[in-house]
Amino acid sequence: MGKPVRIIIIGGVAAGASAAARARRLNEDAEIKIIEKSTYVSFANCGMPYHIGGEITNRQRLLLNTPDSLKARFNIDVYVNHEVIEIDRKAKNITVRDLTSRKKKLTFEYDKLLIATGARHIELPIDGIDAKNVFPLRHISNMDKIKHYIETYNPMTAVVLGAGYIGVELAEQLKRVGIEVTMVEKYDQVMPVLDPEMATVVEEHIIDSAIKVIKNDGVVEIITEGDETPVGVALRLESGREIRAELILMCIGITPEVTLAKEAKLKLGETGAIVVNDKMQTSDKSIFAAGDAVESRHRVTSKSVWMPLAGPANMQGRVAGTVMAGGTATYTGVIGTSIVKITNMAVAKTGLSEKETAEANMDYFVSFSHSPDHAMYYPGATMQHIKLIVENKTGRLLGAQVIGNERVDKAIDIFATVIGLGGNVDDLVNMDLAYAPPFSTVKSPALMAGMIAQNRLNGLDETIMADEVINDDYHVIDVRTASEHESDVVFEESELITVDNLRENIPVQHKGKKIALLCRAGLRSYIAYRMLKQHGFKKVKNINGGYLTSKYALKKDKK
Amino acid sequence: MGKPVRIIIIGGVAAGASAAARARRLNEDAEIKIIEKSTYVSFANCGMPYHIGGEITNRQRLLLNTPDSLKARFNIDVYVNHEVIEIDRKAKNITVRDLTSRKKKLTFEYDKLLIATGARHIELPIDGIDAKNVFPLRHISNMDKIKHYIETYNPMTAVVLGAGYIGVELAEQLKRVGIEVTMVEKYDQVMPVLDPEMATVVEEHIIDSAIKVIKNDGVVEIITEGDETPVGVALRLESGREIRAELILMCIGITPEVTLAKEAKLKLGETGAIVVNDKMQTSDKSIFAAGDAVESRHRVTSKSVWMPLAGPANMQGRVAGTVMAGGTATYTGVIGTSIVKITNMAVAKTGLSEKETAEANMDYFVSFSHSPDHAMYYPGATMQHIKLIVENKTGRLLGAQVIGNERVDKAIDIFATVIGLGGNVDDLVNMDLAYAPPFSTVKSPALMAGMIAQNRLNGLDETIMADEVINDDYHVIDVRTASEHESDVVFEESELITVDNLRENIPVQHKGKKIALLCRAGLRSYIAYRMLKQHGFKKVKNINGGYLTSKYALKKDKK
Repeated sequence: MGKPVRIIIIGGVAAGASAAARARRLNEDAEIKIIEKSTYVSFANCGMPYHIGGEITNRQRLLLNTPDSLKARFNIDVYVNHEVIEIDRKAKNITVRDLTSRKKKLTFEYDKLLIATGARHIELPIDGIDAKNVFPLRHISNMDKIKHYIETYNPMTAVVLGAGYIGVELAEQLKRVGIEVTMVEKYDQVMPVLDPEMATVVEEHIIDSAIKVIKNDGVVEIITEGDETPVGVALRLESGREIRAELILMCIGITPEVTLAKEAKLKLGETGAIVVNDKMQTSDKSIFAAGDAVESRHRVTSKSVWMPLAGPANMQGRVAGTVMAGGTATYTGVIGTSIVKITNMAVAKTGLSEKETAEANMDYFVSFSHSPDHAMYYPGATMQHIKLIVENKTGRLLGAQVIGNERVDKAIDIFATVIGLGGNVDDLVNMDLAYAPPFSTVKSPALMAGMIAQNRLNGLDETIMADEVINDDYHVIDVRTASEHESDVVFEESELITVDNLRENIPVQHKGKKIALLCRAGLRSYIAYRMLKQHGFKKVKNINGGYLTSKYALKKDKK
Repeated sequence: MGKPVRIIIIGGVAAGASAAARARRLNEDAEIKIIEKSTYVSFANCGMPYHIGGEITNRQRLLLNTPDSLKARFNIDVYVNHEVIEIDRKAKNITVRDLTSRKKKLTFEYDKLLIATGARHIELPIDGIDAKNVFPLRHISNMDKIKHYIETYNPMTAVVLGAGYIGVELAEQLKRVGIEVTMVEKYDQVMPVLDPEMATVVEEHIIDSAIKVIKNDGVVEIITEGDETPVGVALRLESGREIRAELILMCIGITPEVTLAKEAKLKLGETGAIVVNDKMQTSDKSIFAAGDAVESRHRVTSKSVWMPLAGPANMQGRVAGTVMAGGTATYTGVIGTSIVKITNMAVAKTGLSEKETAEANMDYFVSFSHSPDHAMYYPGATMQHIKLIVENKTGRLLGAQVIGNERVDKAIDIFATVIGLGGNVDDLVNMDLAYAPPFSTVKSPALMAGMIAQNRLNGLDETIMADEVINDDYHVIDVRTASEHESDVVFEESELITVDNLRENIPVQHKGKKIALLCRAGLRSYIAYRMLKQHGFKKVKNINGGYLTSKYALKKDKK
């Protein structure tokens, strides 16, 4: 055995901690150091909103590891409150500053270096941003300050800037502790990762949860009132509107923390994040990078994307740790699976959104379904609203979005697995999934979504979106029951012919016309479509996702 | 357009009803008939135990379709209470008896015939089997009788014969209405589809739910006491034991209902079920078969198996309906995914069990894991106990069993999807799954299971089962904490060296010995394994699944 390999890891949270532990398991002789700028290593940042909201009461549980525990179990030397200020690639060393005694500088030599510096929140260059009641949420220290502020000043109102994942989680949790919350989002929808008609469902739920939502607006100034009592200030928005807010949370986004990499002249990608190969090596083969600071290959498009998510960060860390320790491993890329809870709603996405698919110039169609998560006759069934994005011709599954109760994680993980293995809708439909009434329907929501897409792919169904129905002047035939038809009218003019009466009442007078068929979820209208198509109606179409999708798709357009 | 195709479907439940509706959607002109022996079509037989137990209160909800609703929506002529008594393949017709006026016979000609006769329960040839308090549960009429019996006679005790899926569901539901339940199982374990050490976990839970379990025993006689009050009888078992039971439920198994197919000289397989091709055609190309009456290709072994499950039945019906209606479809085979709820426990299986893998003479290893279903720091996390069966060398996932709370359906469906797409453990580990603290851990239970198996596959871990530890006289080193070590001792003699102290206390005196490392779930012992292995311990092994698996694996052996 030669000289032990010296591994240094910059950043000790998800990717860094994973890499260190994995490296040790593979290589007992390596010298492994973690340099962490903050006071904590390996903390559960995804849990922070829930500690603020009190769902997680014990703060200690968020601290997954300490320098002592990492030393005892893995013989890793952890330097918290130490900042790397320079990487000398030629000398293969780093210069480190001890933040507790700012003058002290250390130099460590490395054989393998891992940059796991993560991301930092974007700072808005506006007046008042430094006010004492304005907080980002990236670190345990941010969390502690927010929690302390709430407990000390009992704010009645809060503004959450940014309606992405962390924004909605925080808004929910602040509401939970009795604070009136307003979300302000720069884009024209909440949760920009979703397609607009899915985001509209989420927005409605956020509003139903008594959280205010302002879209298409940004903050231009934070108006502070003195320095002593940081309670009782306001935000001025681009629209000119002013909103009072005793607490302001900055969730407008993050950017990869690449300062060190840039200074060391490592290659950065178009996304601004560090470029790595499938061994997690940067343009310098001795320097690895993993986690929120790197860009990754998207497994659907094969393009480089920056996707700061905990799962990929951990996996990239594991790969980097393996390779640094002398083992073999490959990171295959991101699928982009994510999920968020908003009270009793869960919202999840995997693969590409329709927006992303269109941007990638792929040939695709979309397909909506609305199915119960388990047998309707067994108590507690709730609807799962699913959107699939499918490649034309090949039927390859490109992406999925699911909204429903807490159980959407199952459907999204099935879709993610199909996407990860390059499967198409036939593969999905042929899947044998677990069925018993408390857990699923016999055609589980994932399979139903697949079957609907398969019908479309095979030419058994032709769908149309609600906006095209209106813009292209389709005659709408509503095949629901009379009472459904009366209680909910999405399309102002529509003719009622219940599906069960349609065969006896084929509307021959419309045979040459453009007809769009409407029902609640798109299933009865599919049956009606099949009937009319076979009766020689050439211009008949099925309204994609039925009333349940159209309601939101049109709402979005009415903005 | 030529003469409309005449489609006749024998049996109107899962496969039959699916086929009929699908055929109609594809072919508006077809003449479609369903001949159903019982009074009901398209009922939810999987829901029946829950109506008996009162979880599903509304009986009507189990009747998914009626002859009238199928006529109105799909123009299908349904003959309930009609039994097919003969298939004349030459004349292409069937003879049908009207069971309400037994003399009346009808003859229907077919172009395409579907046999979807399902399965029937096995009748034991024993005295007393006809007693008024002995019931199978296959049809709505059985359910009605059981429910009526319970409501009328208020039985205090019940015996459920057979501890398979329906048996445990029924036992749980009977217990729910306050009946003392004893399960009697012929095999030496409950839930024979599971491997014994997993079944032992389930058995413990059943017993904890205050349901008695008798294994390795069968009934030889049902002792009835008069004809008037059917309450208060007993069962005599093979062991000689007698148990009182006012209610007896026969869940000992089912057999494919192939009487008609056999008489028509259609090819039956070794399993006793009807042989079909991937279009669901029998040995007579005009005659199709689907559902519990057919055997299918197992997608892991490519061998023919008889697997009577609702999901495959519906899918086979859909394929048969498509092809009979003139369309194109292929049934790719079963994966064998199933799940059952037992109070707050869920038990699921997909692919092959270890028993089945061994029988198929495949080269495999097994891997156990025990992980929380979601972040430990977020309230409500519970453990998921997972067993994977993995092909040696290729790493192909062959099967999985999961036991946990209600959320095991997610993990099993991920495994099923990987198996369905022919994936290996690398594919599994590379998956990007949905993570947020309420839904998963960052390395979700499915990924953790995959990583553990991958380590083993790549030679980073060598595991040993608890019985081998004992039989082969391994020296056990327990790397848990002192308090864990004291409170639970699985192996009578074991040495305590906590993992965090191991590096400073390498037990060099044991270097040449056979050493087995123990912890709770197999993770700390894996870390210890890596340490000792790299310190030159050649005969060290990691106890597969740790204490949590060993406890059950040894229990099973002590029977």
